[in-house]
Amino acid sequence: MNKPTIYQLAVAGVQKLIPYKAGKPIEELERELGLTQIIKLASNENPLGPSPKAVTAMQAALADLALYPDGSGFHLKQALAAKYGLDASQITLGNGSNEILELVARAFLTPELAVVFSQHAFAVYPLVTQAVGATAIVVPACDYGHDLAAMAAAVTAQTRLVFIANPNNPTGTLLAQAELEAFIAALPETVICVLDEAYFEFVQQAGGGDSIAWLQKYPNLLITRTFSKAYGLAGLRVGYSLSSPELADILNRVRQPFNNNSLALAAAEAALADSEHLHNTISNNSEGMLQLTEGFKALGLAWIPSAGNFVAVDIGREGLPVYDALLHKGVIVRPVANYEMPNFLRISIGTAAENAVFLQALADVLR
Amino acid sequence: MNKPTIYQLAVAGVQKLIPYKAGKPIEELERELGLTQIIKLASNENPLGPSPKAVTAMQAALADLALYPDGSGFHLKQALAAKYGLDASQITLGNGSNEILELVARAFLTPELAVVFSQHAFAVYPLVTQAVGATAIVVPACDYGHDLAAMAAAVTAQTRLVFIANPNNPTGTLLAQAELEAFIAALPETVICVLDEAYFEFVQQAGGGDSIAWLQKYPNLLITRTFSKAYGLAGLRVGYSLSSPELADILNRVRQPFNNNSLALAAAEAALADSEHLHNTISNNSEGMLQLTEGFKALGLAWIPSAGNFVAVDIGREGLPVYDALLHKGVIVRPVANYEMPNFLRISIGTAAENAVFLQALADVLR
Repeated sequence: MNKPTIYQLAVAGVQKLIPYKAGKPIEELERELGLTQIIKLASNENPLGPSPKAVTAMQAALADLALYPDGSGFHLKQALAAKYGLDASQITLGNGSNEILELVARAFLTPELAVVFSQHAFAVYPLVTQAVGATAIVVPACDYGHDLAAMAAAVTAQTRLVFIANPNNPTGTLLAQAELEAFIAALPETVICVLDEAYFEFVQQAGGGDSIAWLQKYPNLLITRTFSKAYGLAGLRVGYSLSSPELADILNRVRQPFNNNSLALAAAEAALADSEHLHNTISNNSEGMLQLTEGFKALGLAWIPSAGNFVAVDIGREGLPVYDALLHKGVIVRPVANYEMPNFLRISIGTAAENAVFLQALADVLR
Repeated sequence: MNKPTIYQLAVAGVQKLIPYKAGKPIEELERELGLTQIIKLASNENPLGPSPKAVTAMQAALADLALYPDGSGFHLKQALAAKYGLDASQITLGNGSNEILELVARAFLTPELAVVFSQHAFAVYPLVTQAVGATAIVVPACDYGHDLAAMAAAVTAQTRLVFIANPNNPTGTLLAQAELEAFIAALPETVICVLDEAYFEFVQQAGGGDSIAWLQKYPNLLITRTFSKAYGLAGLRVGYSLSSPELADILNRVRQPFNNNSLALAAAEAALADSEHLHNTISNNSEGMLQLTEGFKALGLAWIPSAGNFVAVDIGREGLPVYDALLHKGVIVRPVANYEMPNFLRISIGTAAENAVFLQALADVLR
């Protein structure tokens, strides 16, 4: 097939781009199947909803929406800096942490350079690499997690970026902090290390969050976090990175002047101060994880132990038909064949009631 | 001065980037000067605020913010397609039309290619060009507007993109539709023409908006528009482009999967249906433009006739000290020395009361 001329004008990497496939929206399933009772456990969203304090903060900001947002994100950066004991100059705000991942790629990559990440790692890493025409080096996983020794060995003179997701999505695997720091310490200083901690608030293990202390030592370290998961603000798009001021300065040059909208800035600041909602979110997650894994055990299914707010379950057969059968029962989960895990489904932890409906639907489908 | 290593790792274009300088936020001036009565006529925002229907739509959407936005923007695209008689496949949504300008650059430019735009044109054109390392060809303006003949002559085999702002910001100049179409028709098909119509709703001249009919003829034409100006939603970040489906497909591959937030999608759809608010906005603008230009006449000042919601006034002396003196009186306007217009200030049309306060402050400062 001859593509129209306009495609041939696009840059090489873009011509080959296949967009990210998101979790199916509830409304789309309503349109397609005419269902009304739908449960979505597909996008690692917070089943308790946004913080009530964030909703109140947005109410107060609605009237001012004709004004441009504060492009410097002054208040949110002050709040984050105070929480983490950093300077505001070390923070970059993004339209979701997805945007931060993209900014790093655009700031540091050219078609001559390479990026190292793990098999089964977050799908956005290959996308942002491809968009700028850089080479992706995908390192085989070890027990569905990052093989740091193999990743270190894959770094060459062409490598400019390494992506590490901890916990990893969609597998939920967690790296030991000491092993992770040793990996970062051993990287050449010409390699930027992006440590994607989108799910770090859910980590129940001692030592989680140590990574911020590493920023003093490694000017090439960038930690990304988000308000889309534990803070329940996925609909607003707000993420951030913590790094050396130099690295933040570069990303802030590349971002749009108003990449975060006014409501996102107000809501995130309020959510950050709502420790009760965060606590409830984490408790619900621990209980839900137990509920789901007990359910898997009862069904004779294996799963990958997860430190996040989701769990990848091995259903012992091709996942897509099971995903489709679940859709017809009004339950949206995430197939992960595109992560080279064709026999797995990724389930986001819901409320106790949602988890129960899902487990029953899964039992029915597998029977 | 030796820059730290981390700067040397950034791609060449990014190393030289100087970020966009936005209009001074009201709160920043409050912090700096301790003023409480501040008028901002600096960012071409809507002085009547957002559409009340948009505010109501957002209220209804606040509870769902833990869910990711609809990445396809289904409802807003349907509404725009119906309004303009286009297919939804011809629409690309952006985090402000600023993002669309950036997506085009990222999709089509490499360091080997060139971009043509006019002197005194919108500051984001050189920024997105620089960020990808392409060459900017700046064509001298004619009476502060685009010199289309000179721009056509500046197109070479290296040219991949042309930016045209109509009306232009910050000068407010408007091109005749026939002349503009002839320019587009004569472009090589290897050149993408971006027609930036951020201010088209304010154009009071017959024939405004014809450009959409051109889309059938020119697959290389991209029209960008925004909800930040006439629709009063600058704080939410929502813009869009209209083009051939092929061009839209390419931009949709490059954009983030959730570049528009849920509230932006809901508010923009509601605002689009609020013709009364749009009508009031345009009326206020016409009256305010008359009020300001009468005031300039009384002060013996010349201005550039403007088709937008702002006007560039020649204050006959260096603008920055006057800008600064106005700040101390609680009035924020926009200096445009960075647009090679050192003796001009750009004034956004405000309410009648705001315009009067500004005119009095300007008279006091110039006296």
